[in-house]
Amino acid sequence: MGQLTGGDPSLLRRINSAVVLHALRATDSATLTEVTQVTGLSRPTVEGVVEGLIDGGLVVETAADESAARRQGRPARRFRFRAEAGHLLGLEIGPHRVSALLSDLDGRVLGSLAKDVCETASADERLERLRTTVAELLRRAGVARGSLRAVGVATPGIVEADGTVRLGTALPQWTGLPLGERLRRSFKCPVLVENDANAAAVAEHWKGAATGSDDIVFVLAGLSPGAGSLIGGRLHRGFGGAAGEIGALHLLGSEVTPETLLSTTGEPLHPLDEQAVAEVFTHARAGDERARAAVERFIQRLVHDVAALVLALDPELVVIGGWAAGLDGVLEPLRKELARFCLRSPRVTLSLLGEAAIATGALRLALDHVEEQLFAVEGTVTARR
Amino acid sequence: MGQLTGGDPSLLRRINSAVVLHALRATDSATLTEVTQVTGLSRPTVEGVVEGLIDGGLVVETAADESAARRQGRPARRFRFRAEAGHLLGLEIGPHRVSALLSDLDGRVLGSLAKDVCETASADERLERLRTTVAELLRRAGVARGSLRAVGVATPGIVEADGTVRLGTALPQWTGLPLGERLRRSFKCPVLVENDANAAAVAEHWKGAATGSDDIVFVLAGLSPGAGSLIGGRLHRGFGGAAGEIGALHLLGSEVTPETLLSTTGEPLHPLDEQAVAEVFTHARAGDERARAAVERFIQRLVHDVAALVLALDPELVVIGGWAAGLDGVLEPLRKELARFCLRSPRVTLSLLGEAAIATGALRLALDHVEEQLFAVEGTVTARR
Repeated sequence: MGQLTGGDPSLLRRINSAVVLHALRATDSATLTEVTQVTGLSRPTVEGVVEGLIDGGLVVETAADESAARRQGRPARRFRFRAEAGHLLGLEIGPHRVSALLSDLDGRVLGSLAKDVCETASADERLERLRTTVAELLRRAGVARGSLRAVGVATPGIVEADGTVRLGTALPQWTGLPLGERLRRSFKCPVLVENDANAAAVAEHWKGAATGSDDIVFVLAGLSPGAGSLIGGRLHRGFGGAAGEIGALHLLGSEVTPETLLSTTGEPLHPLDEQAVAEVFTHARAGDERARAAVERFIQRLVHDVAALVLALDPELVVIGGWAAGLDGVLEPLRKELARFCLRSPRVTLSLLGEAAIATGALRLALDHVEEQLFAVEGTVTARR
Repeated sequence: MGQLTGGDPSLLRRINSAVVLHALRATDSATLTEVTQVTGLSRPTVEGVVEGLIDGGLVVETAADESAARRQGRPARRFRFRAEAGHLLGLEIGPHRVSALLSDLDGRVLGSLAKDVCETASADERLERLRTTVAELLRRAGVARGSLRAVGVATPGIVEADGTVRLGTALPQWTGLPLGERLRRSFKCPVLVENDANAAAVAEHWKGAATGSDDIVFVLAGLSPGAGSLIGGRLHRGFGGAAGEIGALHLLGSEVTPETLLSTTGEPLHPLDEQAVAEVFTHARAGDERARAAVERFIQRLVHDVAALVLALDPELVVIGGWAAGLDGVLEPLRKELARFCLRSPRVTLSLLGEAAIATGALRLALDHVEEQLFAVEGTVTARR
């Protein structure tokens, strides 16, 4: 499709670097001849680029294959992408726990660690808990903090582009917290903050229940559900980062509050009290009438919220996750009701990643950021003569 | 940013043509020197391209300015884009009427015509009504059918990519109708079929209430409202073309049907009976208690539907249109309720285009199609050396 000549030589070098990196990353190892063939670049260009990448620590010559050497005389030198040249973190800051995933530059998970945190913990306490979790994870994995290239963080609430929590009622002191700024003090690399349901949507698309679809809604089911959506494979955050915050829909009119939704006693449940909620489901399965009625109310609410999302967005696939995902009986009524009144019913399935979804999505966002820097080959070239 | 050399010469010619057309279209008329300056193309290239465009009928030399000639000796030749070289139609096929807008290649409206059609008309009758409307409009404007470059059509229902109506309960015999195919028999140019609310969203963004925003939801208010949304300035159709069909939300649970929503007698209203609906609003303003209660129900339903869209999509702006838009008292309750329970409230405003919105959007879609063909200058150039 034409050649890029003249123009900005440093841009050209970056593009060529990215092309070579991309080729090496797609295989275990390759010879310069193989890279030349795959990329269409000239031999001298490939040699120069590979040398630069070795100097930068991103590529290394692999040990010679002795048997091949014996068989064929001196073997061609082979090179590989050094996925271990940098590391990424995916962090979840939730109401009950903080968790951390560590990966290499290929996104391969090297370790994970989660710690409980009190639902009433202050923002400082919660962040301190996260810091000690990260420190322990890095120490266990033998990875230096300076090796981190990007950190993704996912948390409940509406998150602004700069990582400030605009509104986060699920965690104490969360609204207004400059979470990105606070965490950037702990890390010298970029820190990307995202809403938890958005991160989970990204995760299920990456390696969960939604790998085959680019138009999905992920519902973080709960007493006050949230959702994240991908449109054409890209996260839809909304104009103010609040897309998918469907839990507020029940505040309208005479519908019951989340706290009384699953109550069997008239006493409100705390929306985050997963154990009390699980007990209601257990009692319902055991035949308790009041528990069954409460579960019925819960499912009807969930159906209504999911229906609103489906009608607004028309996704190919709905993935249900969050703490309610493990509980029986949500999926079938959802499918049935959506089929009944949605003009075009999406497929509905359960999360495959379960409670790992949120941190996994945060990790993927960090990986996206690094890939954009390392592997970006897109560039608009204006045609002139 | 580098030069495109070698490669596909016909692609290059097309790109250069588009660049010159773009430059000429942005001004009344220009000299070859001016085009050379604006485009960065060489003088011989510009001369060749302009000659080709003149041959193709898209560019013409303007009449010499006599006063300039007298002042400066022989004036430089000037050229202009021939917006009259082709024409576009924007068509609306609605429950009560069909309407048509005719424009030139700049999207300038040259004429419009609307005709009533019976709500119970068959698909054949409705399409025949549309054909006679178009024929009369073209005749009045003195435009030959062969001059049409693209036709946009907007209609209620879920529309597939090929222009088939997958589901359209508002019009008799509409579900399953291969509308695109049927209309392509009448026109020799491309025919693009779109959902009515989607088209209206595009129209308000083009020249209505939403020119300043790229993230909008347009609500075609009614007893069973539909919606269209733009995300980042692009129409969001959904995976199956059903995005925004929020009217189905009320089918859930114990909520009243559209037909009884505004009834003051217990007798159901026909959802499309605008006159009966308008009367209810008039009676409510006059102090009739039953009418006021009915209007209150209507507004609550609309608030709920709009809230669902807003929570799912988080737009910057919501535009309310459709037949309810002219009726008093919808906007303030909407704003108040959305502010109360949406985590981030969008701006809410009324349609500026009113009943012209749907046909105008259809026209814009036709114009987009033609511009893509005539003015596309984007091309991915893979950098190789």
